[in-house]
Amino acid sequence: MPKITCLAGGVGAARFLQGLVRVVPPGEVTVIVNTGDDIKLHGLHISPDVDIVTYTLAGIVDEGKGWGIRDDSFRCLAALGRLGGETWFNLGDADLATHISRTRMIKEGLRLSEVAARHSRALGVETVIIPMTDDPFATQILTNDGYVHFEEYFVKRGAASTVRGVRFLGAEEAKPAPGVTEAIESANGIVICPSNPIVSVGTILSIPGIREALRRTNARVAAVSPIIGGSPVKGPADRIMAGLGLEVSSLSVARLYGDFIDSFVMDDVDADLAEKVRSLGVSATVTNTIMRTLEDKVHLANETLRSIGLV
Amino acid sequence: MPKITCLAGGVGAARFLQGLVRVVPPGEVTVIVNTGDDIKLHGLHISPDVDIVTYTLAGIVDEGKGWGIRDDSFRCLAALGRLGGETWFNLGDADLATHISRTRMIKEGLRLSEVAARHSRALGVETVIIPMTDDPFATQILTNDGYVHFEEYFVKRGAASTVRGVRFLGAEEAKPAPGVTEAIESANGIVICPSNPIVSVGTILSIPGIREALRRTNARVAAVSPIIGGSPVKGPADRIMAGLGLEVSSLSVARLYGDFIDSFVMDDVDADLAEKVRSLGVSATVTNTIMRTLEDKVHLANETLRSIGLV
Repeated sequence: MPKITCLAGGVGAARFLQGLVRVVPPGEVTVIVNTGDDIKLHGLHISPDVDIVTYTLAGIVDEGKGWGIRDDSFRCLAALGRLGGETWFNLGDADLATHISRTRMIKEGLRLSEVAARHSRALGVETVIIPMTDDPFATQILTNDGYVHFEEYFVKRGAASTVRGVRFLGAEEAKPAPGVTEAIESANGIVICPSNPIVSVGTILSIPGIREALRRTNARVAAVSPIIGGSPVKGPADRIMAGLGLEVSSLSVARLYGDFIDSFVMDDVDADLAEKVRSLGVSATVTNTIMRTLEDKVHLANETLRSIGLV
Repeated sequence: MPKITCLAGGVGAARFLQGLVRVVPPGEVTVIVNTGDDIKLHGLHISPDVDIVTYTLAGIVDEGKGWGIRDDSFRCLAALGRLGGETWFNLGDADLATHISRTRMIKEGLRLSEVAARHSRALGVETVIIPMTDDPFATQILTNDGYVHFEEYFVKRGAASTVRGVRFLGAEEAKPAPGVTEAIESANGIVICPSNPIVSVGTILSIPGIREALRRTNARVAAVSPIIGGSPVKGPADRIMAGLGLEVSSLSVARLYGDFIDSFVMDDVDADLAEKVRSLGVSATVTNTIMRTLEDKVHLANETLRSIGLV
């Protein structure tokens, strides 16, 4: 059985992974997850992408929203609001247990990666989920009002502010979490999930040692484009890429990854860009990348693994 | 309008206070609340008695149980359980907001008494609620398995263990919270609510300076017996008093407070003990002390204030 290591952000990655773990055994998959969105609210450590991936692979995610726990309620958040707390970041009652538990474990001395391992084990997830780093790391968006935390830009402001820049606080000092580099070095194949190339995958790549490990590994590396016909399926990738002066296209994503990928998987609607992707020295697979059904997800996982010779 | 200062534990005190704030304006009442039951669970600072009093005076308490918030749900606790957390201490979803908020404020440097003031203000409570101390304080019960936290004895073990002793960790070093001594000194009347005389009122009295202030104050001091016909209305006062070799009776409670009370209010069923109470040099009021309806509570508050000449 091939061992697959994935780089992942939130919703798009989690949907891709739902298909992947039906193509290869879940226990053979390792997912390195972005923590740039991590935020402290109400004194609790919230890891949005780690939780989205964990909940999705545990089968408890709210499929409609893509985040949070299915059928959750929001009584605690409403009560926090009555006590003067901020309520712009939705936190369900069952979901809060994850943040309370994480905060407590960190206070007791556990690392973020140990917490993620305990939580995924408790929820019956066989796939190995590793936060990209145990060190402080914060993605900030430069708006006309200065730098704001990614979640403040994305959730509180509804991604409505003009993006003038992005910075990754803590990136230079951050070390890959235990197991991250090893998972890249020892995998039979690597998949960059269809996630925001700047604030989800770019964060992971910014940690010293990870990009180098991707260039060095013997495993073939595939990336799935999160951009379809000039816009992302979900999230603010278009505004962030445009704000950084990047063309919002599959080709642009392929270029961002050009130094370490062997294969690029892009949507049918972008077929006309395939030649340009190939000119980067990367194989191009053109297929349906819109994941509405489980069948879509399995298809995309299969095509992606096929592109690096693993199925 | 008379200014009344009360010493309070949990449910019994809160019910008494519901009546009191209908007899005197809520803003003229100050309540000094036991924190000996405070406990850290899931990394959150829980102040059971402060919350019971606050929720009751805010009109949001679950009247049936006497604690927690009306119509609350328990999704977060269930989810904490799935993640391996302890679930023996019931924490509702809306209730958790109080503990999350308190924990955060304490971490940010606020004192317990400042948190209580902010919470009661946010919930529209006009009565001044002051935790007895801002310092660490823990009531422990000596069982046949050694000392356990009061809530572990009371809730986790269902008060089923034999009580061999009680200790108040931190009592010697604890200082009354800001405003406590002043509220005793400046009141027109003081009421010891119908609470456990050992683990609710005894804790407050154990803090250096408080008992002395009660002896010294010019205000007349009334106590309402929590014991009716040899047993408490609620809680483990009988087992704890018996475990300490005390007779479980109104008279016994009057004796515990004999050095600082002027008046003792006891139930009709204990009428035969009134003479013995009076022989302690304390006036005795015999009336109905069972608080089923709001009318009962108002009646008891009126009788209590009348006993110290305030209505």
